[in-house]
Amino acid sequence: MLAMCFDGEVVMRTDYPKPRCAHGEVLVEVSKAGICSTDLEVVKGYMGFSGVMGHEFVGKAVGGSRLWGGKRVVAEINCICGKCDMCKSGLANHCRNRTVLGIDGRDGCFAEYVAVPARNCHEVPEAVSDSEAVFIEPLAAAFQLTRQVKPAQSDRVVVLGDGRLAQLVVRVLRLRLRRTLMVGRHPAKLEAAEKQGVQTVLEGDFVPAKAADVVVDATGSASGFELAMRTVRPRGTIVLKSTFAAAGGLNLAPLVIDEITVVGSRCGPFPEAIAALARREVDVAALISAEFPLADGPAALAAAGNGNNIKVLLDVRR
Amino acid sequence: MLAMCFDGEVVMRTDYPKPRCAHGEVLVEVSKAGICSTDLEVVKGYMGFSGVMGHEFVGKAVGGSRLWGGKRVVAEINCICGKCDMCKSGLANHCRNRTVLGIDGRDGCFAEYVAVPARNCHEVPEAVSDSEAVFIEPLAAAFQLTRQVKPAQSDRVVVLGDGRLAQLVVRVLRLRLRRTLMVGRHPAKLEAAEKQGVQTVLEGDFVPAKAADVVVDATGSASGFELAMRTVRPRGTIVLKSTFAAAGGLNLAPLVIDEITVVGSRCGPFPEAIAALARREVDVAALISAEFPLADGPAALAAAGNGNNIKVLLDVRR
Repeated sequence: MLAMCFDGEVVMRTDYPKPRCAHGEVLVEVSKAGICSTDLEVVKGYMGFSGVMGHEFVGKAVGGSRLWGGKRVVAEINCICGKCDMCKSGLANHCRNRTVLGIDGRDGCFAEYVAVPARNCHEVPEAVSDSEAVFIEPLAAAFQLTRQVKPAQSDRVVVLGDGRLAQLVVRVLRLRLRRTLMVGRHPAKLEAAEKQGVQTVLEGDFVPAKAADVVVDATGSASGFELAMRTVRPRGTIVLKSTFAAAGGLNLAPLVIDEITVVGSRCGPFPEAIAALARREVDVAALISAEFPLADGPAALAAAGNGNNIKVLLDVRR
Repeated sequence: MLAMCFDGEVVMRTDYPKPRCAHGEVLVEVSKAGICSTDLEVVKGYMGFSGVMGHEFVGKAVGGSRLWGGKRVVAEINCICGKCDMCKSGLANHCRNRTVLGIDGRDGCFAEYVAVPARNCHEVPEAVSDSEAVFIEPLAAAFQLTRQVKPAQSDRVVVLGDGRLAQLVVRVLRLRLRRTLMVGRHPAKLEAAEKQGVQTVLEGDFVPAKAADVVVDATGSASGFELAMRTVRPRGTIVLKSTFAAAGGLNLAPLVIDEITVVGSRCGPFPEAIAALARREVDVAALISAEFPLADGPAALAAAGNGNNIKVLLDVRR
């Protein structure tokens, strides 16, 4: 089958073996897939991954476990052991022995077929298109922060960043909060959020005043985290949604002086994301900057890395 | 009066003017004072402070506001405006316009006399000696973490560091928890904690396993924070008690991947600390490594900077 693989470099392969399902797994014929910042990190060596890339997708269950036979499904990306202390304590997403689709120890979805555990699957309702369904995984990650931090309706919430994840975060927050401010560097991206009723400001015009109750850092940079520390009020909360390594120095003293709480936030609840899309509460279609056939995978990756684009999709059936 | 001052360098002055009390302030004749890691940071340029150093002390109210006339008192170190949003929202320790005794914009207590706001003072009960009373401020800072994070009795709590603050932290935790493990580099300091019933291990023998529910980082170093991220379990909590700037790189990705919460923690509740000392629940006397007359201030600072010592006191009346 056709697959976009990484093994020190990105390679399109036409002869990649079709996955064979282990017990309890479903074979999914991939329809569409989405490129995430984590995929760009994988290409830089994140997690030392090799294999088929990709973790955001929608497709049709065509083999393996009969549980989802013929249904249109999306799948959670953490594949768990079900036996370790994390799994047994209700923190299965943190399974000690997990593999992660296209990120850690398991082939992903930038391919014609992908095998996933049946228990990871969720059916996609008719009201949600394939292109929208690709957003379920990252939208669930955005919903996750409202599970970990429960801002009051009157709280001043600032989202730093205007990229893929930040766009979903402001859309989720807008459902619950009166005031959300997005701080970004790209006028066109800020405009996309403004159309959803979100207040925005260019980073160059933003004056941090240690006044926000909650700051979501979705910048993916150490300088973004430093800005978050200058934006949040004493005893406020920073939600960290982006993985980064500070290459230069990083002064964490403000966390102590201002008694700030930092909450790391990763994957989230698929059912909430699916329901929000089905009810048309969250608009994601406007976030699609480009769509490429799978065969043009490397061009799609390059487009996803272009700061002017928001979301880039792969059409696997084209 | 005699005072240990900092103005780019540490200078003992014999002619420093005795403080004049502003309205609502108390003049305190200092009996004893304690040297804290923050004092050592001040000497390195922390907060760009200049003036009389020091913030941990006990003394006798001898002038100014009559509220505490003749009483033996300790004082909270944050001197507030009472008018800003932080003061009005019950977060007075984070007053936007605060000065901080011997740290930020206000003369401290390494002197014969110090002026402090009357509302900052707490009377010291007879059961608490002068040497013990010097520990009230840092002990309150240790109690603060049990206000911000409420570990369950069965939680696995690990304290990284074996210095002044770490010693007080394990003593506070021991009051509430069955299991506290201290990880340090100094056998003699670990022994001091073991005598209080705390389990200890040398850092070189410690194997972090992402298994602790709560980790308190009182190391004061970036490498300590990195160890904390490897010690805490997914969805666990790191309490950050030490201010540090990572000079080299620092990878915060584990906070996101393991959805860790980091809670910055600074000053705390004096009444709890006073009560714990008065009830003999917390033993601090054994932590005193040396005591110097104020005139020997520079030697006392050097002793406090020696990693083999725990607490160094200044006897101001000697």
